[in-house]
This record gives sequence, structure tokens and C-alpha cells, in this order.
Amino acid sequence: MLFFTQCFGAVLDLIHLRFQHYKAKRVFSAAGQLVCVVNPTHSLKYAPTRCAAVQASTEQDILPPCHHHEAVHDPQLVPCTCPLFSCPWEGHLEVVVSHLRQTHRINILQGAEIVFLATDMHLPAPTDWIIMHSCLGHQFLLVLRKQEKYEGHPQFFATMMLIGTPTQANNFTYRLELNRNQRRLKWEATPRSILECVDSVISDGDCLVLNTSLAQLFSDNGSLAIGIVITTSKVHSSEAEM
Amino acid sequence: MLFFTQCFGAVLDLIHLRFQHYKAKRVFSAAGQLVCVVNPTHSLKYAPTRCAAVQASTEQDILPPCHHHEAVHDPQLVPCTCPLFSCPWEGHLEVVVSHLRQTHRINILQGAEIVFLATDMHLPAPTDWIIMHSCLGHQFLLVLRKQEKYEGHPQFFATMMLIGTPTQANNFTYRLELNRNQRRLKWEATPRSILECVDSVISDGDCLVLNTSLAQLFSDNGSLAIGIVITTSKVHSSEAEM
Repeated sequence: MLFFTQCFGAVLDLIHLRFQHYKAKRVFSAAGQLVCVVNPTHSLKYAPTRCAAVQASTEQDILPPCHHHEAVHDPQLVPCTCPLFSCPWEGHLEVVVSHLRQTHRINILQGAEIVFLATDMHLPAPTDWIIMHSCLGHQFLLVLRKQEKYEGHPQFFATMMLIGTPTQANNFTYRLELNRNQRRLKWEATPRSILECVDSVISDGDCLVLNTSLAQLFSDNGSLAIGIVITTSKVHSSEAEM
Repeated sequence: MLFFTQCFGAVLDLIHLRFQHYKAKRVFSAAGQLVCVVNPTHSLKYAPTRCAAVQASTEQDILPPCHHHEAVHDPQLVPCTCPLFSCPWEGHLEVVVSHLRQTHRINILQGAEIVFLATDMHLPAPTDWIIMHSCLGHQFLLVLRKQEKYEGHPQFFATMMLIGTPTQANNFTYRLELNRNQRRLKWEATPRSILECVDSVISDGDCLVLNTSLAQLFSDNGSLAIGIVITTSKVHSSEAEM
């Protein structure tokens, strides 16, 4: 009986996934765009018990949570950059991607232009939607976070980080685009390096920020589709070009 | 002595204005773009005494503040649509522009592409920056508002309204663009009709919304430059075009 119930559940999940994918395809019907359905993860980094511990440690150190690996002996080692978990791992920058895939089960996608379809936007904060994106010979981490910077007022923050150094990050430009109901919102910026910590990028507000009302305007049945384009920007388009 | 002090003040103002204009020109150096320096106005509509009165009336009527003219006898008459003042004027849609210019001293600019340079972004909420924009045979009202939807958390809201009917408004698309420090933010939408009330557009959040931190990232020395483009959209670009 349990087996049949599970089978039925799996079939329902598949139908739901197929439906989500179909919806995204309908919206982003331009050929060549890969639609990726991204399910939410309730961030464990901000769970009440962990929060208290982080707060206690930052009150001592006056350092943001992600700098808890400051005392690294080998300067070439970097801490785990997973935005979801406080993980004691450290290693070389070249193996961060495989650590994120294997230990934290973050998916990786190929393609210069992809559509990130975040499901279940109604879930309470803090919640993260995360994928890695492989493109132009580099790997990027896309983070969409629902967070209450001000109590009772959840906001959505979306940013793209290069899994590389800040110097390498300066060679790229990323664009996030929302498009629905005759409304468009585009955010274009240079990605930050994963070494700079996603938490501080979001707390600085240097990313695409959406109020709940705007997020609802761009959502379709609880899912938010974000078009992503990454380009090289060796000679960065000047501000005058606007 | 007073005369000399006033003269000196006027010269200082002129130098300041010239400096602001020069800064905007530097940022938006593309030929043909008209830079318009827009000074803030502290909204009298939301002054504490007025607020209490509006609140009392809306608690009775359950209507937003701008619907206080519902009991118009001639259906062709529209109330004053000035976002700054509660004004008892009513008249035909065709004379709204001249009323806004003459009575409320709102400037009007010509040109398909203009740069709206809002000064003194640091001023406390509620504050409005307003101009009218004449283009493609119609007049539009651009409103930038600093408002505290959540106490202690001011936000900036920017929208464009057509001084015309909702049917006429559907024929246009407007784009607001911020561009500074290798970051770009673009908002594109169909303008709302001035008959729909700017207050409700802003409270719905159906406009360009900026947190204080994002507004600071895009500001230059306390001034925010917004590039504005209006186009006709008889055949509105489909969502699939993204």
C-alpha cells in the first residue's frame, strides 16, 4: 500500500514539474533558452539556534557570519561558499564547484542564456533558491533569497556571484530580467566574486531587490521566472551609453 | 545690505544649478537628451493635519484619498490630479495640464528622451519630485516619491501617468532607467491613466521601487538621474520576446 502511495506521489510530482516547465516555456518561448525549475530550500544558516550562535560569535569578532574562516593557515584555501549551510569545509577555489555539487547538492546548468524558474514564492522567509550556472568557461552561483530585513516585510534579493576571484569577476556582466503582464524589470551589473560573501551583497542591497507586491506582479501561479544572460565585459560599456 | 545678501544667494543657487546640470550632462552625454533638474517638494497632502483628515474620511468612505471628488455632477469633469496638494479644482481632461502648470507650477518638458535629475534625495519622506513631459502628441506626469510604507524604512517609487484616459494610456510604453557605477536598472511598463490616481499605483507597488541602499548606489552626490523614454506600443511587444 505504502509503495502505491509513494508511486502516486512521484507521478503527481512529475506532472507538477512538467506543468511548471510547460508554463515557463510558454513565457520564455525564444528558442535556445534553457528553463530550469528551481525548488526552494529553507536556509539552515538562519535557523534560530544557529542565528544565536552566529550573533554571539560576531558580537565578539565584529565580522559577518561568512568570515568565520578568517584564521585559514594556507592563504590559497577558501571556506565553503554555500549560502545555505554553515559548513566547516575549506579547499582550493578550483574545487569549490565540486564541493557545492557533491556535498550541498546544488545543480549546475550549461548555457549562455537560461531561465531560472523559482517555485513556491509564497514560502516564508528565510528561503533560498540556488543554482550554479556554467558559461563562458566559468561557473557562477545564482542566489534568489527571500529575507525579512525589516520585520514583517519580506523582500526578494537576486544576485549572481562568480566562483572565482574579484579580478576574474570584473570581466563579466550579468543581467537578470523579469517580464510579465506588459511589465519588464532588468538588473545589470558586474558579478561579485564568491569570496566576497553573498550575505554582505544582499545586506548592502547591491542586487535586484523586489518587494512582495512587485514579486507577485511578476509571478505566475506562485513561480517567478528570471531570465539570465552573462556576457564578457572586458571593455565595459560606459555609463554614457545609456 | 539685504539686497546684496539676496543677490549673493541667487548667484550661489545659479552656480549650484549649473553644477547639477553639468554633472547630469557628464553622466548622460548621449546627444539629444534633455537634462531636467527637478527640485523636491514636501508633499502637503500627507502633512500630519491633512493625514488625520484624510484618514478620518477614508475610514468612513473606504476610498483612497484621491477619490474625494466622487460626487462629480458632470461625468466629463475630472478632479485635480496634482499628487502634491489636495485641491478642490475640477474641470475637463483637456485643461488638466494648464491647471497643473498654472496653479501648481509643475514644469513641462518636450522631447521623446529626457533625463530627470532629482536633487536632494536625502530629504525626509514624504517628498515628491514631479514634472510633466510632452511627447508623441500627449502629456505625461512623472512622479518620483519618497515614502515610508513601513515606518523607519523610506523607499522611492517612480511612475509615469498619461494625462488622458486608460484607453489612450494603453497605446504607450514608458521606460525608466538608472545607470551608474557599472550597474543598470530598467523598468518598462504601460503608463497608467491619471484618472487611476498616483497614490494607488504607488501603494500597489506597480512601479519602479528602490530601497534607500539601491537609491544611494545610483545617486551621485545626493542627486538621482532617471533616463526616460516613451514609445508607442500599438502592437505591444509580446512577453515571448524576452
